[in-house]
Amino acid sequence: VDLNSDMGEAFGVYRLADDEALLDFVTSANVACGFHAGDPETMIRTVEGAVRRGVRVGAHPSYRDLVGFGRRALDATPAEITADIIYQIGALDGVARACSTRVSYVKPHGALYNTMTVHQPTAQAVVAAVRAYDPSMPVLTLPGSAVIDAAAAAGVTALCECFADRAYTPEGRLVPRRQDGAVLVDEDAVVSRAVEMATAGTVEAIDGSRIEVHAASMCLHSDTPGAVALARRIRHALDMADVEVTPFT
Amino acid sequence: VDLNSDMGEAFGVYRLADDEALLDFVTSANVACGFHAGDPETMIRTVEGAVRRGVRVGAHPSYRDLVGFGRRALDATPAEITADIIYQIGALDGVARACSTRVSYVKPHGALYNTMTVHQPTAQAVVAAVRAYDPSMPVLTLPGSAVIDAAAAAGVTALCECFADRAYTPEGRLVPRRQDGAVLVDEDAVVSRAVEMATAGTVEAIDGSRIEVHAASMCLHSDTPGAVALARRIRHALDMADVEVTPFT
Amino acid sequence: VDLNSDMGEAFGVYRLADDEALLDFVTSANVACGFHAGDPETMIRTVEGAVRRGVRVGAHPSYRDLVGFGRRALDATPAEITADIIYQIGALDGVARACSTRVSYVKPHGALYNTMTVHQPTAQAVVAAVRAYDPSMPVLTLPGSAVIDAAAAAGVTALCECFADRAYTPEGRLVPRRQDGAVLVDEDAVVSRAVEMATAGTVEAIDGSRIEVHAASMCLHSDTPGAVALARRIRHALDMADVEVTPFT
Amino acid sequence: VDLNSDMGEAFGVYRLADDEALLDFVTSANVACGFHAGDPETMIRTVEGAVRRGVRVGAHPSYRDLVGFGRRALDATPAEITADIIYQIGALDGVARACSTRVSYVKPHGALYNTMTVHQPTAQAVVAAVRAYDPSMPVLTLPGSAVIDAAAAAGVTALCECFADRAYTPEGRLVPRRQDGAVLVDEDAVVSRAVEMATAGTVEAIDGSRIEVHAASMCLHSDTPGAVALARRIRHALDMADVEVTPFT
Repeated sequence: VDLNSDMGEAFGVYRLADDEALLDFVTSANVACGFHAGDPETMIRTVEGAVRRGVRVGAHPSYRDLVGFGRRALDATPAEITADIIYQIGALDGVARACSTRVSYVKPHGALYNTMTVHQPTAQAVVAAVRAYDPSMPVLTLPGSAVIDAAAAAGVTALCECFADRAYTPEGRLVPRRQDGAVLVDEDAVVSRAVEMATAGTVEAIDGSRIEVHAASMCLHSDTPGAVALARRIRHALDMADVEVTPFT
Repeated sequence: VDLNSDMGEAFGVYRLADDEALLDFVTSANVACGFHAGDPETMIRTVEGAVRRGVRVGAHPSYRDLVGFGRRALDATPAEITADIIYQIGALDGVARACSTRVSYVKPHGALYNTMTVHQPTAQAVVAAVRAYDPSMPVLTLPGSAVIDAAAAAGVTALCECFADRAYTPEGRLVPRRQDGAVLVDEDAVVSRAVEMATAGTVEAIDGSRIEVHAASMCLHSDTPGAVALARRIRHALDMADVEVTPFT
Repeated sequence: VDLNSDMGEAFGVYRLADDEALLDFVTSANVACGFHAGDPETMIRTVEGAVRRGVRVGAHPSYRDLVGFGRRALDATPAEITADIIYQIGALDGVARACSTRVSYVKPHGALYNTMTVHQPTAQAVVAAVRAYDPSMPVLTLPGSAVIDAAAAAGVTALCECFADRAYTPEGRLVPRRQDGAVLVDEDAVVSRAVEMATAGTVEAIDGSRIEVHAASMCLHSDTPGAVALARRIRHALDMADVEVTPFT
Repeated sequence: VDLNSDMGEAFGVYRLADDEALLDFVTSANVACGFHAGDPETMIRTVEGAVRRGVRVGAHPSYRDLVGFGRRALDATPAEITADIIYQIGALDGVARACSTRVSYVKPHGALYNTMTVHQPTAQAVVAAVRAYDPSMPVLTLPGSAVIDAAAAAGVTALCECFADRAYTPEGRLVPRRQDGAVLVDEDAVVSRAVEMATAGTVEAIDGSRIEVHAASMCLHSDTPGAVALARRIRHALDMADVEVTPFT
């Protein structure tokens, strides 16, 4: 299994997550590219930290919304979205190149991530950016996402990620956050779900049924209290279960 | 000879120069990368226009100063300057890649351009960025610039550009703008100086002596009134004089 | 009648409209406050120009979206919208104070203007900002706007503006732009509609019926080609018709 | 004595200092105005916290440099500096007005603060902004600052602040930070110096002599580790020494 986490979300003097600590547990780093977080020096520091540990670098592009941390949907045109994503992937790939690595995948951030899963023009705009930049680069998204069809139509690879702390519907989709029980807070349960997902490829859905989870990567949160401690526990439990934790790219 | 000009300096709804017209006369386009001008859609439009005409794309990075159009010196650290330039070259190179070309040289903008010619740490920071991104990429600068030594020490190529509308000292440096006669306004004189520079490699200095001008490229202004008309005249005069106008990279 | 127009929408080196010319024809200037356009020096220059001619200064706040010129809807929370508008009114009022005048009304810009007419929480957020800043300050909006009820509930004054170049429904609403015939391009017709609106308080609706137009102000566009010439014609026609053109505040 | 501290230096999701805790100990809050830190919601939250405790609100304007936190000198023109400061004071005063208070003084931030103490045109530009906005508003600066003369010439009040953790020259100036011993790290010493400054109006200079300190306010740092604990100790020691801690405005 691969473990991915959002990284490089500092900006200037501001810090958000303990990237250095988290980098010890993940295998793929979704690095902010400057539009919702991440100034160039932060990007270099983050990519250098990833390179030192053999962690793969993915682009984590966003709507241009620093004050809203990219969490607010923006009614941008598909052409704007495509251009903004190409710009951000390129900027991070420039940093990666200067650090002797390259960007190996794309995972959009925040509101852009959410919008592309349900809004066909946005999904196509994201896919168009990846295809224009490097059609061999996979995009991370959710089960059932609009990106999956858009990517297939464009000859781009869309891969799904899973979440050990999110409830699933019997159909394998995420239970929406606004619904009760959507986010699991019991850390023991989260850890054991992570292990089951990684070993058996299954998880218990919200109705008690056991469903299959097909995911190229498991997402660990970086900016919640206790994120590092939980990442450590999950990584340790996976190691104990003899799961090979290795980049998906 | 090569003719270069600043391009892509629109931002959102704002337009500055008539890039489409100018692209017909130049062979190298210094494309703004977002820090002083140039949003991603503008960058794509500009690079597409360059590709259609076989015009080479150069990065035109700046201090981060949109409201000041990059014309104000900023006391950034060398590490900040290096990171900012890598980010900007990468962003433009991403756009270039999406348009089936690549960035082939770097010419910093405005206050950063001026500072790097006289301030050793800034010159080294610029060169460090180019070296980290692609050591084979040349940097355009002025005769006598601090960048020349910094580039030589780092194994990077620094090339000089010349200006048909600027007065030269007998030593081959530009007469500072604040000095009387520093900028030539007589268009006929500018055109004939351009031709002499391109054919004989010489120009009349401000003291009346004739000096040698060693330049890889000649800079045409883009954002002054009459810029397009003057570019057309210079290009026409060079064509009439059988000068091959071709990219320097 | 009052004539209002968007002003101060330059940014740094970028210019958009010919504010100096337009200020000769309008009586109320909607001055950009920095979020979609308008740096502080531009704001000062614009307010000084207004003061010299006895033109009233209104705040023209926007979503924070410089690259999109505030034309893109942004899913901001009501608290964010309220805070952003208070900030922008205050900033412009600071400039006004330094120029010996004060902000006397508020007309939101672009996507924020459109959203507040149809989206109750946004309408309330706009009204909350005006009420917190100065409850005696009127807000300009459209007939049928959600702002009208929100303002009434909060004890704030909402006033409507009319457009000589937009088609009206028989109910007195604007015909949506996407509909054929929504925008009148015949300048003679626009001028005569302006005069009829100002003298008789009526206009011909899109179905040929004649409807009443109750408006505190008539909006003249500033950023379209020919905007100044049309403003001159309308102002001249109003003067010829002995209409007193005077600020609504 | 008055105690002032920088506040409201969060931005969007990013937090810097524990403003809520610090507000319990200070009497004047220098509130960031959006150019180096401080989005409008943060500004409202900060001013509300100040109002609840009777803490005075001062404007803390900066060069426009979010990524550099206003710590980098920027070669802005005096007119730009004046306009930027008017804009920022106005924006904060708008927020203050919405929170039933007003801005009562100005203390520039970071590089702008440092530059105005030594660079006459910048000092004059700062004073011009304050004078244009409200000539009765005092400006906080350092002993020996260029602002003092500029303010006197313009009929504006410049007041000095003191620092319990900074070494002083025998002439009453701050020892430059780059010099050994410029910043005191012994908290006991800092606390006792604060009490001596507030009670006797004196402090031991770096050469061992005892000098007079004439200051309207004492500055407490907000963004260093231990800032809150030290502020608590200083405030407690002042209370124990029967010093009345009260706003200087």
